[in-house]
Amino acid sequence: MEFTIAQIAQLLGGIVEGEVSRKVTRLAKIEEGTEGSISFLSNLKYEQFLYTTSASAVIVNQSFEARKSFTPSLIRVENAYTAFAQLLEEYHKLLSFSRMGVEKPSYIGDNTKTGEGIYRGAFSYIGRNCTIGKNVKIYPQAYIGDNVRLGDNTVIHSGAKVYDNCVIGSHCTLYANAVIGADGFGFAPQPDGTYRAIPQLGNVVLEDDVSVGANTTIDCATMGSTILRQGVKLDNLIQIAHNVEIGKNTVIAAQTGISGSTKIGENCVIGGQVGIAGHITVANRTIVTAKCGVSKTIRKEGLTLGGNPATENGDYLKSQAVYRRLPQVEKRLQDLEKAVKVIPLPADEQAEPIR
Amino acid sequence: MEFTIAQIAQLLGGIVEGEVSRKVTRLAKIEEGTEGSISFLSNLKYEQFLYTTSASAVIVNQSFEARKSFTPSLIRVENAYTAFAQLLEEYHKLLSFSRMGVEKPSYIGDNTKTGEGIYRGAFSYIGRNCTIGKNVKIYPQAYIGDNVRLGDNTVIHSGAKVYDNCVIGSHCTLYANAVIGADGFGFAPQPDGTYRAIPQLGNVVLEDDVSVGANTTIDCATMGSTILRQGVKLDNLIQIAHNVEIGKNTVIAAQTGISGSTKIGENCVIGGQVGIAGHITVANRTIVTAKCGVSKTIRKEGLTLGGNPATENGDYLKSQAVYRRLPQVEKRLQDLEKAVKVIPLPADEQAEPIR
Amino acid sequence: MEFTIAQIAQLLGGIVEGEVSRKVTRLAKIEEGTEGSISFLSNLKYEQFLYTTSASAVIVNQSFEARKSFTPSLIRVENAYTAFAQLLEEYHKLLSFSRMGVEKPSYIGDNTKTGEGIYRGAFSYIGRNCTIGKNVKIYPQAYIGDNVRLGDNTVIHSGAKVYDNCVIGSHCTLYANAVIGADGFGFAPQPDGTYRAIPQLGNVVLEDDVSVGANTTIDCATMGSTILRQGVKLDNLIQIAHNVEIGKNTVIAAQTGISGSTKIGENCVIGGQVGIAGHITVANRTIVTAKCGVSKTIRKEGLTLGGNPATENGDYLKSQAVYRRLPQVEKRLQDLEKAVKVIPLPADEQAEPIR
Repeated sequence: MEFTIAQIAQLLGGIVEGEVSRKVTRLAKIEEGTEGSISFLSNLKYEQFLYTTSASAVIVNQSFEARKSFTPSLIRVENAYTAFAQLLEEYHKLLSFSRMGVEKPSYIGDNTKTGEGIYRGAFSYIGRNCTIGKNVKIYPQAYIGDNVRLGDNTVIHSGAKVYDNCVIGSHCTLYANAVIGADGFGFAPQPDGTYRAIPQLGNVVLEDDVSVGANTTIDCATMGSTILRQGVKLDNLIQIAHNVEIGKNTVIAAQTGISGSTKIGENCVIGGQVGIAGHITVANRTIVTAKCGVSKTIRKEGLTLGGNPATENGDYLKSQAVYRRLPQVEKRLQDLEKAVKVIPLPADEQAEPIR
Repeated sequence: MEFTIAQIAQLLGGIVEGEVSRKVTRLAKIEEGTEGSISFLSNLKYEQFLYTTSASAVIVNQSFEARKSFTPSLIRVENAYTAFAQLLEEYHKLLSFSRMGVEKPSYIGDNTKTGEGIYRGAFSYIGRNCTIGKNVKIYPQAYIGDNVRLGDNTVIHSGAKVYDNCVIGSHCTLYANAVIGADGFGFAPQPDGTYRAIPQLGNVVLEDDVSVGANTTIDCATMGSTILRQGVKLDNLIQIAHNVEIGKNTVIAAQTGISGSTKIGENCVIGGQVGIAGHITVANRTIVTAKCGVSKTIRKEGLTLGGNPATENGDYLKSQAVYRRLPQVEKRLQDLEKAVKVIPLPADEQAEPIR
Repeated sequence: MEFTIAQIAQLLGGIVEGEVSRKVTRLAKIEEGTEGSISFLSNLKYEQFLYTTSASAVIVNQSFEARKSFTPSLIRVENAYTAFAQLLEEYHKLLSFSRMGVEKPSYIGDNTKTGEGIYRGAFSYIGRNCTIGKNVKIYPQAYIGDNVRLGDNTVIHSGAKVYDNCVIGSHCTLYANAVIGADGFGFAPQPDGTYRAIPQLGNVVLEDDVSVGANTTIDCATMGSTILRQGVKLDNLIQIAHNVEIGKNTVIAAQTGISGSTKIGENCVIGGQVGIAGHITVANRTIVTAKCGVSKTIRKEGLTLGGNPATENGDYLKSQAVYRRLPQVEKRLQDLEKAVKVIPLPADEQAEPIR
């Protein structure tokens, strides 16, 4: 991109203070601003950088009053943070619309329909009988199996894999090398000690606005569907087992695993490296702190959990505080044991055994 | 698939009660059954759903007696659960035999031999000097390096990677984006603080009937082989380091990691997010509960482990039970300390210091 | 490879004892040596194998004195271990230089320049405006986005993905299915409970000599760069979040995760399955033991950490030692409570309540 400061001010509904014709080509943090970049100042903790930055423009709050001289042009807006976020999004849109058309070679199976505005990268594969919506972007080396449905404006990044029969909504994003719909981990033990694979015939359903991080895996259901409801956001390297259901707007940080047939509520916030056992339910608005192990159903909504096995976070923190002083606790116990033994008793009582 | 109820009954050796000519096209849980689906009722906990389901057919035990009216045709068999499992497998076979032949473009190196019944998906890559067995399925974008051997009926899913010199048995499955045979993590510290890579020249050997989950990684040995014995089943996102050996029929749940040169016994069951240290041995039939950290050799067979560092699970559970009441334990200790101090002693003894 | 023992002795500056014209084609551990392999004996713990091995040659220290008869030719060198390591490296070089040229089909975008000695595997993808150094190897199905820079002698293994605008130094290795530069996990909560993606406009910078394991993910910065300094070594399945910075020569074992904006020092050694919180700093030369959870800034250099939340490892081990005997500790407390209650006091004092 290349815009003048005047053009950006107009976009943001702001007023320029300083030179309006300077050109900006990129966004930067104020402490890293260089000639040609635009930045913002919202938290006054960073005010010092305004006086040293080489950025060409800085977006500030209307109320901001400088205390020293500086070189960037200012763009005054009601809320500098919001305005900058708006700029980020506009910039992002510009970038993300750059991929269009069909690169060669790419593969598309019989009886598959694609909507207008599609991007199919080189070496991408789409199987048979698929229905692909409008403005879908399928990056190089992505794989879409047979009978898959992809909603409008969904983006499948390079190397992501979607197995047969999965259904993915609109405005979803699968990042690189994510795997959707591989067989659930189901094996029936046999009398001779071997295991026999239980056929996994279900699929994965991602509703609209779902985001799946790089190298995350979501297994298909044994029968029926593994379901991620609208607005679920998954970070990288997460494992979602077969027949799991995750409620609307739940967000999950990296490297967390959810075992088979578990149902997670809506608007939960689940930290990184959490493990959640199979066949349980976690209530709406539960917050699970990082590295927790959730082993039982959580019925009450809105709790914060900590520890492994997880309890209410407050209880966990109290136990953990004592854990840290366990060596002293044991020492105090020892002292007390000695003390109790030596308590001077009347001579004729001293032989009395402690009951 | 599309079958009549009569055809399915014949396959299962069952007797139809109701309309025999209805057609079924898919399998479903009884609570999710719709027109055209077939389901089963084994556990009477689910009996209620028979009276409300729209499934076209339901497989039931011979002995089943309905207490209300219902709409599906029944297929009576000796064991409804077993019969349904049989149906699942037949259905699965139908599906999995659908991929055959060579899609274009795909790559195959010099001097590589492939058996009959092969599927080579578009954009799949097979290096030089490989030996590929019968009925092997290599999905789109899978990669097989040089000098690799793949046994009969093995399936390599989309995006799975097998490095040079690896040996994979018959009836193995590598799910999407699994990586077999990347270099082990071996670096020799140098006097200047840098690290120098130790060349990793070994390979990975998977014996027959091994299953490797999506995005799981198994590193090659420094020399010799990282070995997974017959019937090992790995879930998704697992890390198996260089020179590890895993015994027959051991199953490992998602996101577990096993460090270098460790030897795991036969018929072990290892939970999710477990970490196992390097250069140790874990005895046969060990059960490791989820999130455990196993730091020492386990010599005795058949133990169940819990905690981090892991101990026998019973001991861990006892410690953990007290951990949960640590705040009360500390309070009791405090009370006792006060109590001991205030125990009313004869006046002339009170100055006596506690020794 | 195929060399005579004389040739290898010359390479290593060693002296042959025994037949010099035998041919060796591979390297092996002494206990696994077979006809045609060369091995080494450094640690005398393994001396017994010299007398039973079928290896064609064994490298030994100059000072070594055999106590029995054996069949291999010996190559005497100053340090057998170092000599064998040298042989490993030479062998490795031989192997790794075997891939050259451009396989078809492969994709390269407009205005991208590649240096001499490049390997571009079939189905590899390189976007527009990239600068690719000398002797770079890009394996089949690897993906390089637009505006990427790759330094000399860097190797991108099969299925690894590098997003737009990333910068990768010289002598770097990305193992199979690693993902560099996917969007950071940044979502702004909205008043209606949904989340809105915060555009991630930064990139990832890997300096020289960085190694990234299979299926590891390194997210791009929101703005600016996620940076791995020279000589950083990452194992498999690691998550590095947006805006993280990792200092020189730090090594990290498998399945560890580092949250957003955290800064790790130089020459740290971080174990497997560790979690490190966001927006903190970890000092140089910190050692983090496996499975730790580091939740706070570590200012002092050179500490060893243990536990979750992590403390100095010595403190953690002391607490954990008491944790293991918690059931006995509680029992002792109970005994003491009973003892204190039953201590025989003068009759008129017995009603006195314990305060």
